[in-house]
Amino acid sequence: MGNIGTVTLVGAGPGDPELLTLKAARLIGSADVVVYDRLVAAEILAMIPPEAERVNVGKSTHHHPVPQEEINEILVRYAQAGRNVVRLKGGDPFIFGRGCEETARLAEAGVPFAVVPGITAAQGASASTGVPLTHRGLARSVRYITGHCKADEMLDLDWAGLADPETTLVFYMGKATIRLIATQLMAHGLEGSTPVMAVASATTAQEQRLDSRLDRIEGDLARSDLESPVIFIVGAVAGLSGRTSAGCLCT
Amino acid sequence: MGNIGTVTLVGAGPGDPELLTLKAARLIGSADVVVYDRLVAAEILAMIPPEAERVNVGKSTHHHPVPQEEINEILVRYAQAGRNVVRLKGGDPFIFGRGCEETARLAEAGVPFAVVPGITAAQGASASTGVPLTHRGLARSVRYITGHCKADEMLDLDWAGLADPETTLVFYMGKATIRLIATQLMAHGLEGSTPVMAVASATTAQEQRLDSRLDRIEGDLARSDLESPVIFIVGAVAGLSGRTSAGCLCT
Repeated sequence: MGNIGTVTLVGAGPGDPELLTLKAARLIGSADVVVYDRLVAAEILAMIPPEAERVNVGKSTHHHPVPQEEINEILVRYAQAGRNVVRLKGGDPFIFGRGCEETARLAEAGVPFAVVPGITAAQGASASTGVPLTHRGLARSVRYITGHCKADEMLDLDWAGLADPETTLVFYMGKATIRLIATQLMAHGLEGSTPVMAVASATTAQEQRLDSRLDRIEGDLARSDLESPVIFIVGAVAGLSGRTSAGCLCT
Repeated sequence: MGNIGTVTLVGAGPGDPELLTLKAARLIGSADVVVYDRLVAAEILAMIPPEAERVNVGKSTHHHPVPQEEINEILVRYAQAGRNVVRLKGGDPFIFGRGCEETARLAEAGVPFAVVPGITAAQGASASTGVPLTHRGLARSVRYITGHCKADEMLDLDWAGLADPETTLVFYMGKATIRLIATQLMAHGLEGSTPVMAVASATTAQEQRLDSRLDRIEGDLARSDLESPVIFIVGAVAGLSGRTSAGCLCT
């Protein structure tokens, strides 16, 4: 075996290719191999050098994503063959990105690795709609939660802890479970009038936005044409959207 | 009055100038005026065009920061004079950045604005130390909290809601209040052995890191030479640091 390569987990950001970091752009432009997911924009993939190898793990030959354990082995194999690998993931590798499952396997195999953070969907939706994640007097804390659960399981969260009117809640992957989320948050003390903003494809040309409230979000969402992935921002800050978007300029 | 300018609130990221987004770099490079804070790196300020005006609001003539209300008026004034303004802030403008106080004033004054998100300190510290913010089986949620409070007030948080062993807690500006934070979290049910990682100047050449646990962090921090700003990552994920950093490569 010759020299071992390195693997860098790189966050590709929320959708807008310009929200990539300078470091991510540099590493993509000098990679030997790029292993990427379904949610990475075409404009970002266009930055991969023509001579570099591209590995799409968002879809296998049977149109299913490659299992996580197999992705881990792909990364180890390329690095052991001496290649410098960029592992490109939507959002931030360490926020609902399963990044640590990959770095743990790399550490175990003795492969040097690094991680480059990316703008996560909550930040993208917040910036593009003008809704802040924290705000003096309204939200002293912000919390990101996954609304995803296995098909045969009930979403089991710390509802009492979540129902804090001074914390902004951002639910990722919550489209299928929004009814339960809204019901439980109200059962644990949040007002039905608590503002909820749903955002699909944040920061892209396809961005869609829905302003609602906890006691109406299920019906409003069902009547909307928002497509997955959707994130939900729950809390008083979501009610600022009308005010601040008055002067909003999309860049 | 001629044409009105625009104001773009831009996140400068956690410290490493390469963690700026491509969009932020483009906007800084074409600004007429850049209004910036104390925590923005010199390498980022060097990207401002020589002909652009620079306004440092991190320090006034009396070595105190310019009050928020005055910053709001500075932004309105430059925009009304037809200048395109970049308002450059450490981290992300909408996460503990008081960004919405500025956008609300701009909206009120009829000044068009936009917001560009930035990598926040929690993400920078997470990536550079290899400690994930979420991880299957350990942390299904991550929460950012400010540990800052006025000198004459007690930090009054939703301690019972915070003390969830399945949520990663990241405290910003908590160096002065870490004793209270640790005591209250333990009083509300978190184990004394809960891992805590403190990181100062994350993602810069001056980065310092301290691995501790809830029942020891106060003493460990007092004996350390960590300089502000320090952020604290509390939760089971902080205990992964030893394992994952084995193969860590700093880029």
